[in-house]
Amino acid sequence: MTQWLLTCVELKEEQKTYLQDNFPTIRVASIDLLAVSDYEKVTIIYGWSDNLPSLIHFPSLKWVQTLSAGVNYLPLEELAKRDIMVTTTSGIHGHQMTESVLGMLFSYTRNIRESILKQEKHEWGIVNTGTDLVDKRVLIFGTGSIAQQLAKTLQVFGCDVFGINRSGRQVDHFTQTFNYQEGKSRLKTMDIVINLMPGTKETYHYFNDYLFSNMKDGVIFINMGRGTSVSTSDLISHIKTEKIGFAALDVFEEEPLPKDSELWNLQNVLITPHISGATDKYNDRAFTILTDNLIRFMNHEELKNVVDLNLGY
Amino acid sequence: MTQWLLTCVELKEEQKTYLQDNFPTIRVASIDLLAVSDYEKVTIIYGWSDNLPSLIHFPSLKWVQTLSAGVNYLPLEELAKRDIMVTTTSGIHGHQMTESVLGMLFSYTRNIRESILKQEKHEWGIVNTGTDLVDKRVLIFGTGSIAQQLAKTLQVFGCDVFGINRSGRQVDHFTQTFNYQEGKSRLKTMDIVINLMPGTKETYHYFNDYLFSNMKDGVIFINMGRGTSVSTSDLISHIKTEKIGFAALDVFEEEPLPKDSELWNLQNVLITPHISGATDKYNDRAFTILTDNLIRFMNHEELKNVVDLNLGY
Repeated sequence: MTQWLLTCVELKEEQKTYLQDNFPTIRVASIDLLAVSDYEKVTIIYGWSDNLPSLIHFPSLKWVQTLSAGVNYLPLEELAKRDIMVTTTSGIHGHQMTESVLGMLFSYTRNIRESILKQEKHEWGIVNTGTDLVDKRVLIFGTGSIAQQLAKTLQVFGCDVFGINRSGRQVDHFTQTFNYQEGKSRLKTMDIVINLMPGTKETYHYFNDYLFSNMKDGVIFINMGRGTSVSTSDLISHIKTEKIGFAALDVFEEEPLPKDSELWNLQNVLITPHISGATDKYNDRAFTILTDNLIRFMNHEELKNVVDLNLGY
Repeated sequence: MTQWLLTCVELKEEQKTYLQDNFPTIRVASIDLLAVSDYEKVTIIYGWSDNLPSLIHFPSLKWVQTLSAGVNYLPLEELAKRDIMVTTTSGIHGHQMTESVLGMLFSYTRNIRESILKQEKHEWGIVNTGTDLVDKRVLIFGTGSIAQQLAKTLQVFGCDVFGINRSGRQVDHFTQTFNYQEGKSRLKTMDIVINLMPGTKETYHYFNDYLFSNMKDGVIFINMGRGTSVSTSDLISHIKTEKIGFAALDVFEEEPLPKDSELWNLQNVLITPHISGATDKYNDRAFTILTDNLIRFMNHEELKNVVDLNLGY
C-alpha cells in the first residue's frame, strides 16, 4: 500500500531518486504541489511549515519527522490526543552548535568582537589581554547529545566541564553532573554557564533573578537552548550591574528580538539571530535521519528520536 | 658569583620571592631601577623593550630570554657577532593562538561577525546558513609547536589537516606534511589556508600573487605568523576579486596598520591588532620558561628554545 509523505523541505533531485529507489511504496509530495483532495492520504510529514494547513485536514497522519531538535512550535496537545508520533533530528546539531558556542565564547575571550567593532572605526589596539579556556570551569544546563559533544570539545581546550540534568545521572564527557537542585549550589564557582535546555513548562524562566544572583561575578552566560527559559528582564538587570560579564544569546523570549529591546544596546551582549543550529550541511544530515526512520517505520520498528509529547522533548 | 638579571617585565611579588629563594646568586633588577653604572654587570636580560639602552652598554651580556616566539624585532646580527644566546618562549602560545584562529574562523563560518555588525544596527536575520568544519581541508604553513596544537585541535572538529615545512618531514597531528614546493601544488584543494611561518628573509612576501592565484576560489586565509610574509597589495587584489572569500589577519607588514590602509574597508576582512598570542596567563607561563632555563644556565646545560641567530628562528 502506498504511503504519502508530505515534505515541507525542498529535496534535492538525488534525494528524490534515493527515496524512489529505496522506498518504492512511498509517494513523496511537496507541500506546494499537493492537491487538497490528496491531504487525506498523507501519513508522514517531513519538516514543518507555517503554510501547513491545520492537522484536521490530515486524518491519516501517523508520523511527523521534524527538522529540529526542539519541538515547542508544534501543536503538541493535538498530536498527543491523536497519537501521532513526532521524531526530531536530534543528533545532527552537535557539530555546528559546538562551533557556534566556541565562536561566541572566543569572540569575547580572544577580543575578536572588540576588534570587529574597532575595525569599523579604523581603530587599532586592544587594551585587554584577553584570556584562554585552560582551567576554566564550565557548567552546561542540559546533558543531551549537543551538550555531550560540546562538553567533549571544551575538555580538549582544558576546561573542567560540569552538567545539569533532571535526575543528576552521570553522563560521558562531563567531569561531574548534578540534578537541578545540586547544580544551583555549584553555580558560584563556574566561569562559564551555558544553557542548552529545551523550552518546556518546567524550564520556563528557569534563569531568573535568583539564579543569576548566585552566579560568579563577571560570569559568561550563553543561551543556545530556548529563549523562554530565561527571564529577559532579570537577564538585562544582571548584565547592567556587570554581574554577568558577557552574555551571548542566540535565542530569545520573543523572536525576532523586538527592535526596541534593551538587549541590542548593552555593551557586553552578543546577539545572533537563532542561527547556531544552521549549517549548509543541515538538510543532508536531516535526510539521513529521515531515511533511517523510514526503514524503521516500514518495518514497524521503534523510530529514533521519538518525542515524549507530554514532556515536550 | 652574583649574576645580574635585568627584567623588562614587571614581576609579581611571588615571582621575585621565588627567584630569591631558588636562585640566591642571581640579582634581579628592573629596567626602571637599574643604575647606569650597573649596566656592565648585567649577564641576563628577561624580555625586551624599546626603552632598553643599546647593547653596547651591556658588555657582560650572555643571554636574552625573550617573551615572544618570533625574534625579528631583535638586533640579530649584533647578538650573533657577540655570541649572545637568545631563547624564546616558544611553547606557551599554543592554547591562546589556537583559540584565536578558531575564533576568527567561527566568526565567519558561524556568521558571528555578520551578527555583530547587524547588532550595531539593531538588525535581526542572517540569510547565509553558514557552515561547519566537518571535512574541511586545512593547510597550515609552519609545523612548529603552535601549528601542532592547532592541527591537533582542528582534527577534533573533523578537519583534514595538512602542513608545510622546509624539509617536508612528517609531523604529529598532521594528516600529511609537504615541503614548500610540494605544498604549492596542493593549494587548490584547500578550503582554509593558515600562515604560522616566522618572519625571516626566506618567508618575505612568500604569500604573493602567484600563491593566492593558485588557491581555491573563495578560500579562507588566516595570517597569524608575521605580516612580512604576505604581500599586502597582492592580498588586497585577491580579496577584491573574491578569490579569497574571507581573510582574518592578526599581523601586518606595517604595525599598527596605517589609518589609510585599504584593508580596513574591505567587506570580507577581519582585522585584529596583533593580539592572538596575548592572554592573562602569558606572564605566568613565560616565567616557567625563564626559571627552567635559569636552572640550565646555572648548571651550564643547554637552554630550551635557543634561536639560531642566522636562520632567525
